[in-house]
Amino acid sequence: MEHIMDGRTCAEILERVRSRRPLVHHITNTVTINDCANITLCAGAAPVMAEAPEESAEMAAVAGALVLNIGTLSTAQVASMILAGRRANECGVPVVLDPVGAGATRMRTDAVLRILQEVDVAVLKGNAGEIGVLAGTGGTVRGVDSCGIAGDAVDAAVACARATGTVVSMTGATDVVTDGRRVLLVENGNPMMDRLSGTGCMAASVTGAFAAVEGDYVLSSAAALAAFGLAGERAAVGARGPYSFRTALFDELFSMAPEDLAAGARVRARHGV
Amino acid sequence: MEHIMDGRTCAEILERVRSRRPLVHHITNTVTINDCANITLCAGAAPVMAEAPEESAEMAAVAGALVLNIGTLSTAQVASMILAGRRANECGVPVVLDPVGAGATRMRTDAVLRILQEVDVAVLKGNAGEIGVLAGTGGTVRGVDSCGIAGDAVDAAVACARATGTVVSMTGATDVVTDGRRVLLVENGNPMMDRLSGTGCMAASVTGAFAAVEGDYVLSSAAALAAFGLAGERAAVGARGPYSFRTALFDELFSMAPEDLAAGARVRARHGV
Amino acid sequence: MEHIMDGRTCAEILERVRSRRPLVHHITNTVTINDCANITLCAGAAPVMAEAPEESAEMAAVAGALVLNIGTLSTAQVASMILAGRRANECGVPVVLDPVGAGATRMRTDAVLRILQEVDVAVLKGNAGEIGVLAGTGGTVRGVDSCGIAGDAVDAAVACARATGTVVSMTGATDVVTDGRRVLLVENGNPMMDRLSGTGCMAASVTGAFAAVEGDYVLSSAAALAAFGLAGERAAVGARGPYSFRTALFDELFSMAPEDLAAGARVRARHGV
Repeated sequence: MEHIMDGRTCAEILERVRSRRPLVHHITNTVTINDCANITLCAGAAPVMAEAPEESAEMAAVAGALVLNIGTLSTAQVASMILAGRRANECGVPVVLDPVGAGATRMRTDAVLRILQEVDVAVLKGNAGEIGVLAGTGGTVRGVDSCGIAGDAVDAAVACARATGTVVSMTGATDVVTDGRRVLLVENGNPMMDRLSGTGCMAASVTGAFAAVEGDYVLSSAAALAAFGLAGERAAVGARGPYSFRTALFDELFSMAPEDLAAGARVRARHGV
Repeated sequence: MEHIMDGRTCAEILERVRSRRPLVHHITNTVTINDCANITLCAGAAPVMAEAPEESAEMAAVAGALVLNIGTLSTAQVASMILAGRRANECGVPVVLDPVGAGATRMRTDAVLRILQEVDVAVLKGNAGEIGVLAGTGGTVRGVDSCGIAGDAVDAAVACARATGTVVSMTGATDVVTDGRRVLLVENGNPMMDRLSGTGCMAASVTGAFAAVEGDYVLSSAAALAAFGLAGERAAVGARGPYSFRTALFDELFSMAPEDLAAGARVRARHGV
Repeated sequence: MEHIMDGRTCAEILERVRSRRPLVHHITNTVTINDCANITLCAGAAPVMAEAPEESAEMAAVAGALVLNIGTLSTAQVASMILAGRRANECGVPVVLDPVGAGATRMRTDAVLRILQEVDVAVLKGNAGEIGVLAGTGGTVRGVDSCGIAGDAVDAAVACARATGTVVSMTGATDVVTDGRRVLLVENGNPMMDRLSGTGCMAASVTGAFAAVEGDYVLSSAAALAAFGLAGERAAVGARGPYSFRTALFDELFSMAPEDLAAGARVRARHGV
């Protein structure tokens, strides 16, 4: 695989988010909706949350990206996601899907499969368990936590990307981003991110902000995870627990200069897929 | 215009909030609902959130103020807002309306116009774009952000107050509060407030708390924005980003003594309207 | 009453939460749902929120505890609570009910009575006003705040436990935990906890986490309130207001070692009931 992504490319995408300030439309869960709005602002984009079926498609049409997150899904909400997603597709607006808890209940798995069928999803961002379930290669999800995956993580991500036709962005100690052909591994991050509810959702929001300004979604997704993970690394320094960590996480992403990301991004290509 | 509001008047209203601890009933969005509850507590009032149609009017009847915020509206929620708003009107409970995103989608604009038609709104608190849209003088809203207004800001606020029959409280670098005749300008605040999601919603909650204890809603609204803005000024000192700013913002409003507000409020009358 | 609970027993239950990491399923309000998720994590358990009727029972079946909180109830949500609660009963999963605002509106009182009728609730955690209302001994609730109780607090808690057949966990300056026979008094806590929205909801989440690993719900509930209250005591040291207190509250519970709880828990038996 010839493509190598360096920190400079990540920094350039971050700079574009900051200068263009894309609107990132969310249809998301009530647990972390505030975090998603604020992390979008800290990334340099403008969040909006609108899920009523009377307006979700209208809002999607003017957005830079649409983020769908099924963390507290309802049947009505999934229907509105599909309305918004289809309109986003018509308008060339990239759609990011966070399949929170897919595999934990039948409703969640079915909702994700239905959205993938009805909407052209640009990026599917999930944890290992969720991606394993959706790849059909095997994964275990308890509640909203990944409890493991069958076989190799990269293989599962690649299989899921090929099965779904999306860019898969699989978070973990090492994040795996792949379109089924190219594979990028992102090493940024800190274990404290697992002690705070919603870091996965926040990663999807940042992924949306970056997708709004970079049409190569492998690059944009890896850059988003590098930036968010680097903020996490910096925030962990001096944190006394999950909430002082949270305060620092948002502040660090907000104050991250592109040159910080250029120097701190740890993205490498995985060869031989 | 003869009326001048000094810091002492602001401080007296704050003292009344603290001593009476009015119940501020919210029907509001899921993004910032927690912020709204906590900022109401920090102002010295008691928040409650109840939007089921079976109870919203009953709760409004015993409240000191009712705050309606359409940030994540649904058709059912707007219907419940109208039920609660009418009951508030019957009981002499002031209603504050935050028209979040009016102008961004047809549903939002229509919902605000319908609430204004069905409910006697005491205070309409919005950003410049929203107020311009509702005044009919021209405004642009993208997502939930103001993207500008046609013509002079004070003229738009005055036109909106006259068109809607409400006190308009228009937030911005300088806040404009007017009943269409008197105009007060509030200079308190800090640009960091725009980097945090929900400061507009929080301003509406504080406006509700102040309206519950002062029947001159021009005065109460200006005092609320002065107090909230002063907390923002103080919080910005030493903040490292939006989340350390947020922590300090709530703490500053909580610990603000009336004499602090008397000294720090920057409210002036605009002559010649 | 012979049973005395010492700090060592509290610490052992906390240790079990940390080592087993039970899944705590919530159907809860939108105001404090994020706080509930994060406090559950800080206690050492795994939160999940799932309220759609299509999945709430399925999720309850695999949980270690189910927490029901009516803070922003709807008719549909209460129906889903009952579905999930019944399934939890079938599976031996303890159910914790937080009757937020019972007594403030007819809908809230009725919802609690209906849940108590349809579901075998293990622990009913409320403030004094709510418990007085549900005991039928008299209590006053304004919005979601307790405004007092008729007669003695312990008597009301005991009466409520006997009337409902649950363990009652009544929070206040001194918490009262009783099954109608044994009575434990928990002295941990700090007045700052009343200045922050959602500490009652958080207490219910921690109660759920502890109930998941200790089948004597008098002991588990008292231990949960001791741990949460001790975190509050420690967090109040150096807090400048409700939000710096909040940050410290979560961090303190997260970093609380079992030996800290063994030394700091202040639980005593009340004799002669």
